This record gives sequence, structure tokens and C-alpha cells, in this order.
Amino acid sequence: MNGVRGGQSLSGFPEWSPAQRWVEIRMLDRLRDTFELHGFSALSTRAVEPLSQLLRKGETDKEVYVLSRLHDDAAQVDAAADDRLGLHFDLTVPFARYVGENAGRLTFPFKRYQIQPVWRGERPQDGRFREFVQADIDVVAADVLPDHYDVDLPLVIIEALRRLDVGDVVVRTSNRRLTEGYLSGLGIEDTAGALGAIDKLAKIGPAAVAQLLEAGGVAAAQSQACLAYAALRGPRAIDDAIALARRHGAATEMFSDGVARVRALLDAAAEAAPGAVEADLSIARGLDYYTGTVYETTLVGHDDLGSICSGGRYDDLATANGVTYPGVGLSIGVTRLLSRVFRSGVQASRDVATCVLVAVDSEASRPISDQVARALRARGVPADTAPSAAKYGKQIRHADRLGIPFVWFCGADQSDPSETEHVAARQPLVGEIRDIRSGDQVSADASTWTPPDIDRWPSITVQGVVTAGSRDSGKVRA
Amino acid sequence: MNGVRGGQSLSGFPEWSPAQRWVEIRMLDRLRDTFELHGFSALSTRAVEPLSQLLRKGETDKEVYVLSRLHDDAAQVDAAADDRLGLHFDLTVPFARYVGENAGRLTFPFKRYQIQPVWRGERPQDGRFREFVQADIDVVAADVLPDHYDVDLPLVIIEALRRLDVGDVVVRTSNRRLTEGYLSGLGIEDTAGALGAIDKLAKIGPAAVAQLLEAGGVAAAQSQACLAYAALRGPRAIDDAIALARRHGAATEMFSDGVARVRALLDAAAEAAPGAVEADLSIARGLDYYTGTVYETTLVGHDDLGSICSGGRYDDLATANGVTYPGVGLSIGVTRLLSRVFRSGVQASRDVATCVLVAVDSEASRPISDQVARALRARGVPADTAPSAAKYGKQIRHADRLGIPFVWFCGADQSDPSETEHVAARQPLVGEIRDIRSGDQVSADASTWTPPDIDRWPSITVQGVVTAGSRDSGKVRA
Repeated sequence: MNGVRGGQSLSGFPEWSPAQRWVEIRMLDRLRDTFELHGFSALSTRAVEPLSQLLRKGETDKEVYVLSRLHDDAAQVDAAADDRLGLHFDLTVPFARYVGENAGRLTFPFKRYQIQPVWRGERPQDGRFREFVQADIDVVAADVLPDHYDVDLPLVIIEALRRLDVGDVVVRTSNRRLTEGYLSGLGIEDTAGALGAIDKLAKIGPAAVAQLLEAGGVAAAQSQACLAYAALRGPRAIDDAIALARRHGAATEMFSDGVARVRALLDAAAEAAPGAVEADLSIARGLDYYTGTVYETTLVGHDDLGSICSGGRYDDLATANGVTYPGVGLSIGVTRLLSRVFRSGVQASRDVATCVLVAVDSEASRPISDQVARALRARGVPADTAPSAAKYGKQIRHADRLGIPFVWFCGADQSDPSETEHVAARQPLVGEIRDIRSGDQVSADASTWTPPDIDRWPSITVQGVVTAGSRDSGKVRA
Repeated sequence: MNGVRGGQSLSGFPEWSPAQRWVEIRMLDRLRDTFELHGFSALSTRAVEPLSQLLRKGETDKEVYVLSRLHDDAAQVDAAADDRLGLHFDLTVPFARYVGENAGRLTFPFKRYQIQPVWRGERPQDGRFREFVQADIDVVAADVLPDHYDVDLPLVIIEALRRLDVGDVVVRTSNRRLTEGYLSGLGIEDTAGALGAIDKLAKIGPAAVAQLLEAGGVAAAQSQACLAYAALRGPRAIDDAIALARRHGAATEMFSDGVARVRALLDAAAEAAPGAVEADLSIARGLDYYTGTVYETTLVGHDDLGSICSGGRYDDLATANGVTYPGVGLSIGVTRLLSRVFRSGVQASRDVATCVLVAVDSEASRPISDQVARALRARGVPADTAPSAAKYGKQIRHADRLGIPFVWFCGADQSDPSETEHVAARQPLVGEIRDIRSGDQVSADASTWTPPDIDRWPSITVQGVVTAGSRDSGKVRA
């Protein structure tokens, strides 16, 4: 390649620095670990789907990226839309397609987690990207999905998010049956349109929602009843909703069913994780085709970020050979969460895993330095040899710039540099190790020397608190 | 979503089953672990690049996927090619672009690993996909890249591949300076064209290569000298190349420089990993713009698969602000390797991580089963509760279908089922655990019971040999 010049990065396509990437990796490891401990299968689907799959919901508010091959001729590009491929805009559509295709080979209920990038050609803004990573968990059953999964899944998500050390989270929940039952009880015919309007409450405020509703043919009294309902949140929300429904004659059978379902969920969640799940009747999940429970998740103190984890229950995630597959799931917006985490000053202690940089006396003695590094790695200590046999000061500065805490000097007798190589050749694994942060230097044997746990891997600092590095999942299990 | 029906999967876009995905995850974990132990930074770049970047080499044999937004109007789609985005077809182009953009923020030499999918709109065939995962390591320096990295990187790759337990691998190497020095010594002017022809040797055979060369204006005697050179492989290859060059008067200065470089690499590699690196002068890496060492890697016994890991040295991976950044790197074709590994019968012991399925006596006592599962997870034992309080036989069959080895029964006294719930309520963590493979059932306490190591996570079977599960990296380091 004849030289690539520095250019501008692309808006909406975030790229983390190597140190930030450590934070992301640790986060993804912990998510994965939690999901696996809870019995979710690992799944990864291709990045592309036929447009016919991506658009089969009929309408979507997601901007789809369509692919064409550079060397295709124009005739092929203009081929029927159904044959063209697009990048998936979420992980639910591909999962539904996967379940439909593989129903005969899967054991139901099928629990899977899936952590992959997705793409949307939207206008980038704070917390909204064109390429971003989602971490989804879903469970899908053949014919009937037991209700306990509506409780289980948000609890897994809460456990997963808590293990990320990013601060408190609250899962807010409602139920489409509750809201649709109320809306139809009010006499509103276009309940889907009303749900879409209510869904915009946090973004555009109550006056604009009322306008939207009334523009859709909803009478002023009804639209006020909608707003009163959508304002309900917290421990009294369901009682208040019942009172409201009675007052407006909107306590339909569907509404009552919704009440029972939300209450069962809130009661079970309160027992297992007090304070982590609360009712929020403004949640409607606009254009998504949920049919029961819906969820959104707030990072406490960061309401402006929007939901960091959303989802709900579908009665018909997929159908195949006459069988319907209902499902419930949630999706963590990993990139959105990370973008805020980085802004809050979370950082990794270094750019590389390397814990020890082994100094090189001369290119001729590099094999001795390599031997020391090998001995350290054999015991799980990330180690590298210096790039060149520069002066020690320069080698130490290289370690310092990367944040590597220790530098190893080969040869036991540093007092007589002319002897270093000879000593090293006799006892290659014996040398001296310097903590370049403190300057402390001691004799050590590379076959036994072990760094403090906190230094072995890059550590993560969250609001002044240093936590262990990216490979701590093994310890949790020890 | 109103029901997704089973469809056909897309040729060239492989999707692994959940059990296969465990094998892939274990493989990626081990690669990552090896790269991190050796001091490579973690890097992930966006999936898209401007077409101007993807095509800046001037010509490419890679079929690029170009993106357009579904709702773009025709005028935008027809915009200047430079503004359009394409999916990256390898991880080298994005890495070069990243280095150019971030040179001021990076510490050189910069070592990074990158594991991501790439896309090529090629005709799918055995071992060739349209979407596949690559695992790359590269080191890039400002101005001068020390020669020892040409040795270090293939050694890291060999260590990484050996830890995958997929069989023996051999890194074959040559040097562009050796080959170009020889070709120009023969009097061939279009050395690039001749390199491209030689590169096809394994695919099309010597007669067709000779035809290609001669069609490009190379005399018959010269083309025979090219073929004699490209046939050299193994311990005597360099000596034979020198003899050949002398005979044809092709021992140019560049050729001699190439001899010294290949020999230094082979000598150092022979010391560190005997038998793992050998000379193969047919390696030219056709359209790739390497300038020195080149590598390909064979999975022994699977020559037909092609190279599973290729790379080389670029003298100008990137330039920024007048500084040139030379680099050397290798790229493992993870998906290609996996496709063969699966065909060889490698498999995971189960579809889910779950080691214990906790049976549920009744929906009313589900909280007790949940409590047992939590106690097991708290000590790193993947556990799940049964989907429903069906008859025990059905719950056991569910575990069996998923390959879950153990089923837990709540309640200490299984002899009197009517007492089970009461007993469980008093001592919720005491129960009985059955190994459903042997039928053995014993009393156990969920706060202390521990499965055999081999069962804790899904294990991988390679040619009849069972190895530990996907989370063994912690153990390697313990």
C-alpha cells in the first residue's frame, strides 16, 4: 500500500483508543460471563440479511444500509429489492430469522445471547451512532413461553449491568396489554398511533404529545387521560392507573390482564432485586412490535442518555411450519453506555496488556531477554521485550509511555555493566526488576517472580476507584 | 414482527450452531490470550471505510461491498465514489488508516491485534467466504522497524495456533527482495507481473505459470528459471537458490540482501521453534504490496485448504506528516480454519454453558429453585432452572437434549415427594444432584457442591481427545 495519509474519522462510527478498548473488552467479557452463567447459548449471526427480512415488519424507523458489489453492473444493482442484502439494524430480526430457519435443530425454550455490531444510517448525535455494539439476551419457546421469563430476563440484565461498575441502573417496565387496554377503553381506535405518540413523551414533552394525539383524531379529554396515564411511574403507578381507568371507564378486560401481569413482574422483581425494577407507564416502545411486557433501562443520573437497555415480549417472534415462537428479550446498547462511561472519566491503566518490559542489553543478547519474557508469559504474566537495544533510559521511557509498570534488567550484577551479558548467559532468568512508578528495584528470578494482582493486567479506574484488570472473570469463579 | 418464516441461509455467509460457536469462542479467547501475553494492544476499527481508502492501492483483487442508504435518493447514490462507504475486505487497510489518523497519539513501535469480520463479494467456495473472521497481529514503527519483528511475529502466530489444538502448522516464508532480486537479475522487467504469475503456482501448476509469464513477454529460458526458483522449498532452498542465481547470472545485490534476511529469519526461528518455519520460494503474495518478508501458513495434512495465516512486511504501511510507518504482520483466517476444524469432527460437549439444570417442583416453589441456581452461579457454576414444572422425566429430557450433565432436585428427602417442598423451604440449598449420564444421584449442598473441572464448562472434543471448556484461559495462568 503506497502510504495512507492521516484523514478524518467518520461521524457516527466511533473508534476507541487501545486503552479504551480494554475497558470495552472487560465490559463485554463480564456481560458474556453473566449470560453464560445463566444458561444462555452463544450465538452469532451474519451481518447481512435480505432486505425482505429487514423490512418485513412493513415499516421501520431504522435507516437501513443496503449493499451492492463494486463490480456489479447497473442491471444487477437494480434487481428486485428482495434479492438485495442490507446490514442488520438490530439483533432481533436476525435472531427471529435464525430461529425460523433452524427450528428443527434447536431445543426450546431456546435462550441465547448475541453480542455484535449493528448499523443504522441515522443522523449521528450524542449517544446515537451509525455503527454500534448491542448485547442481546432472548428466550424463545415453541407455542407457549412461560411467564417467569418476563421476570428472569430483566434480573439477568440487572446482574450483568451491576457487574460493569458503571453506576446504578433502574429497569422501567410496562405492558402493552395494560396500555392498549386502557387506550381502547378510552374509545381510541388507532391504539398503535396513540402508542407511537406516547412513546415520544420523554423527547417532545406532554404538550406536543397531546398535539400529536389530537391530530390523529383523539378528542382533547381523551388525550389528557392518555397524558395522565403516561405520567404514572414508581410504586403507586399501578394503583393510580386502576383509579384512572375506573374514572374514565377504561378498565377493560385487557387492561385488567395487563394489571395482573405487571404486578406479578414487579412483585417477583422486588423480592429478587429490591429497587431495581419499577413501573413506568410512559413506556410504549413505539414502532417495535411487542405484545406484552416492555422494558427500558436508565443509568441513574444520566436520564439524558436515554435507555441503555430496552426490550419486551413478542407473541410471535417467528413462525415456522405452522408453529409460533413467542419470545422475550432485552438489548444493551453497549456503545451508547461506553460513550458515557468514557466521558465520566473511566480509564484503563495502560494501552497494552504488558506488565513487564524486558530490557535488551544488545541485539546480540536479545535471545536472553526473549527467554526471560517467555518464562514470565508461561506463568501468565504479559511480557514484552524492548523494541531495540537503546540506552536503558530510552527503554524505560518507552515502558512509561505505554503505562507498563515494570522493567526487567537481564544479568544479576547491574553494578558492573561489562559483566552483565556474561552473568546473564550463565543464569539467564536471574535479573533485576524495577517498578518504574516508585523506582524500587530488586533482584528477581523470572521463573518465580509474580507481580501484584492489580498490576498483572491493565486495571480500570472508575471515579477514582481502581478495580482489577480485564481478565478477572476467572477470579470471580475461583 | 408478524412472523418470520424459515428460509434459506445465504451462501458464503456461514453461521455456526450454538455448540460450534463454543468452539469458535474458545479459539478466539486463546488467540486473544496469546496476543495479549505478547504485548499486543487490543484494537477494533469500524467495519466501513471510504472507498477512496479501500481502493487506494490502485488495483485490488478483492470484491468490495459498497453501502448506500435505503432512503437515499438516486442523486446521492451517484455521488462521487470517494464519498461512498464500503465494508473493509481485510484488517490491514483499516489499520493503516487508523495509524495515519492517530500517529500523534500512539507510542511506536505500536503492536496491535485485531479480531473482526471482513467482507468480500467473491464467489463462495470451499474455505472461501463472503463474510469471515480474521485475527491479525501487526507491529508498526515510525521510520525504522527493527528486523527482529520479522522473526517475532511468526513465532507468536505459531504459539497461538498451537494453543488451538487443531494440528501441526508450518509457516512458510520467503522475501520479496530475494525474489525480485532474482527476477530482475534474470533480466525480467515486469517483476510485479512475474510475481503475480508465480503466486498462482499452487493453484494452476507450472505449465500454466510458464504460459502466463511468456504471455507477459518473458522468454522461455527465463520462465523456466523462474519455475526452478519457485519450486525451492525446505532446508536446502536458500543454498539451491544461490546456485540457481549464479548459474543464471541473477545474483544481484538485492538478491544477496534477500538471502541474508531470509537466513537470519530461518536461523532465529529454528532456534526458538524447530521445524515450525521453513523457506518456500513460491510465496510471492501476488497483488499485496509487501516489500520484504512474506509468509503463508499450512495446516499440515490440509494443503488443499490453502494458507490459514498470511502476511509480510510493508515498508510503508502508512505515512503521516512526512513520517513513514513500516510494518510487519500476519492474519489468521479464523473462519477458514474453523470450517475445516468442524469438518474434522471437532465438537463441543453441549449447546449451552449450563452445567446444572435445577428442577422445579411447582411454579409456587420456583423461587427455591432460583435460589439454588444463584448459589451455584455465585461460585462460577453455570446453572439454569427448568423452563416449567413439568414431570421430572420431561425436565431431565430437556437437560439431556441440551447436553447439560447434571440435574438438581430441591428438597433433601426425595423418598417422600409430598414432603419435598416443606423440606426445601427449611433448607433450600440442600438437595440431590443426579449425573444424568450415569444416573448416579447423591445428596448435595448448593453452597458447596462443585462439578468436576471437565464438566464446569462445555468441553471440546478433537479427534477423540476431550479438552477443557471455553473458559480455560484462567487456568493456564493459575
